[in-house]
Amino acid sequence: MTVDGDHRPDSLRRPAPSLDRRAMGRARARWSNRAKPPGALGALEDLAVHLAGVTGQSPPPVPVRPAVALFAGDHGVVADGASAWPSAITGAMVATIAAGGAAINALAATVGASVTVVDVGMAGPRPEPGGPFDGVLDRRVRSGTDSIARGPAMARAEAEAAVAAGRAVAEELIDGGADLLIGGEMGIGNTTPSAALIAAATGRPAADLIGPGAGEPAEGLDHKRGLVERALTRAGAPTDPIELLAELGGLEIGALAGCYVGAADRRCPFVVDGVIALAALVVAEGLAPGAASLAVAGHRSTEPAATAALEHLGLVPLLDLGLRLGEGTGATLAVTLLQAAARALTQMVDLPEG
Amino acid sequence: MTVDGDHRPDSLRRPAPSLDRRAMGRARARWSNRAKPPGALGALEDLAVHLAGVTGQSPPPVPVRPAVALFAGDHGVVADGASAWPSAITGAMVATIAAGGAAINALAATVGASVTVVDVGMAGPRPEPGGPFDGVLDRRVRSGTDSIARGPAMARAEAEAAVAAGRAVAEELIDGGADLLIGGEMGIGNTTPSAALIAAATGRPAADLIGPGAGEPAEGLDHKRGLVERALTRAGAPTDPIELLAELGGLEIGALAGCYVGAADRRCPFVVDGVIALAALVVAEGLAPGAASLAVAGHRSTEPAATAALEHLGLVPLLDLGLRLGEGTGATLAVTLLQAAARALTQMVDLPEG
Repeated sequence: MTVDGDHRPDSLRRPAPSLDRRAMGRARARWSNRAKPPGALGALEDLAVHLAGVTGQSPPPVPVRPAVALFAGDHGVVADGASAWPSAITGAMVATIAAGGAAINALAATVGASVTVVDVGMAGPRPEPGGPFDGVLDRRVRSGTDSIARGPAMARAEAEAAVAAGRAVAEELIDGGADLLIGGEMGIGNTTPSAALIAAATGRPAADLIGPGAGEPAEGLDHKRGLVERALTRAGAPTDPIELLAELGGLEIGALAGCYVGAADRRCPFVVDGVIALAALVVAEGLAPGAASLAVAGHRSTEPAATAALEHLGLVPLLDLGLRLGEGTGATLAVTLLQAAARALTQMVDLPEG
Repeated sequence: MTVDGDHRPDSLRRPAPSLDRRAMGRARARWSNRAKPPGALGALEDLAVHLAGVTGQSPPPVPVRPAVALFAGDHGVVADGASAWPSAITGAMVATIAAGGAAINALAATVGASVTVVDVGMAGPRPEPGGPFDGVLDRRVRSGTDSIARGPAMARAEAEAAVAAGRAVAEELIDGGADLLIGGEMGIGNTTPSAALIAAATGRPAADLIGPGAGEPAEGLDHKRGLVERALTRAGAPTDPIELLAELGGLEIGALAGCYVGAADRRCPFVVDGVIALAALVVAEGLAPGAASLAVAGHRSTEPAATAALEHLGLVPLLDLGLRLGEGTGATLAVTLLQAAARALTQMVDLPEG
């Protein structure tokens, strides 16, 4: 499906590749005579079949070069009380991640994943060599969004640029050898636009979707719900994904959406994290219908909007460990499961004769 | 607590070491000022605190040399229809594992774990160099058990020998550098003695605890329940752990129990797998009160007896992926989570100033 008026060859809008049903059938057949009772590896069996569908290969290649692409952006709605933390914490945490001292660094190292940090919309100083953001890619589209409670987060062109930036990072990582992408994010206040975006896309009332995010907002959950409701009243429920992103989203959310579209287009498996990642996947599904069917949901976020988005997109997460940090941490923990699934299907011999 | 009449210095029966509450307090304090909101790493935070309690160190060492100890044994109750597969499949699967072609080999390789296979009670030919069981440790106590539906599985002295064999393997692995133990097992029919053992220990009726195991028994679940009920009627509900094992258990179940006692005694973290492993942990808790409090439950088995044992022992599994294979597969998948937890607590810096 091509959206009217958009015919550029490099369009961000075109259907995602379909799951390769023949490869999935071969993977299922291969499972059926491995050395184990049928179905005894549970979700790992489905996961290997899914990887065959995404990659078009059975057995699917074992992902050995996973890469975390972590996008950072700031949010105007923080000035309206969306978070207990000031936007300056985004920059402080991005510097911590760039220096290797955050949770995502420890988790990525555990599963052998690289971490690439990308500024697509932080509000503070731009990354430069030798500064606190040394090593952070400067792909900034603009310095933070405007408050979604008062007007659109950004212009349509900026939303398109954020998506394009994320897509370019995915392509660069895949061209560099990455065989599994994990989207991460850092942006103080970004559970508020994520909840708004998911509410608009699913039609669920904001009151059902508001959680504390990584930490209770200073003025409480009622205040956060009020901000989301004001944004929804103002913006309505846009059906166009770029309008949805421009009205209610964020720059790192747009970049994550582009990252997923890029991974899907290249048939590179990708793992989705928590509520911000799921808001981005909603946008990605709008841009490239079918993209969500290629995704693996890594971890069930504690945010109610995450569960609404998972249901909307038809995804069931692999892990449920109570994480509510973001950064891509939940998705990164699931990497081992993808590796184990592909490796088991590849390496196991035929069922022995009794 | 020392059991009356057992005063050997190498006794298998003595309380397990306690969790080190001071180390746990230090770990909790260390989490509280890492670069993340309080509690945002969910179960990983509890897991690192637990590892501090087991090892007595904060931050706990990152387990980098995990080892799977996989014990094999056969079960007389298979001749009474406990399984759809003949006991010969135990040997065939042990040969497959020894050759590296089973699920546990693929999963262990994914998390960097070694696999040591130990015959403590297979019914077929003994392992010998150059044979199909090349590389399998021969610690056989006896060749298979007697049917628990007709009489005790084994003599008390044999139950003690199976426990001692498992404990010795744990000690050898730890002396060889292993810093995390995963118990695995292979034994056609072994969900039947496991259910019987758990029913006796928990007082739950057999009817609530019977599942299909890795595959439906040939004569159906009603037949399997009947076998367990016959065994329980015959044996009663022994309170002595060696009697419980001798009456209702299996040789690999006893060895696993010994493995857990050995790991606990050495303050080496260990991960418990599904229903057979949990039956063994019930025995281990009887032998060394407190041992279960040092355990990590890796994965929620689909067997109802597993859930009963988890509740009885006060454990909550990390993963719930529908696995029902055994071999230590579910526990092995959890290794990444332990590594990630310890690494995050070790490596993360202090919370940045906003």
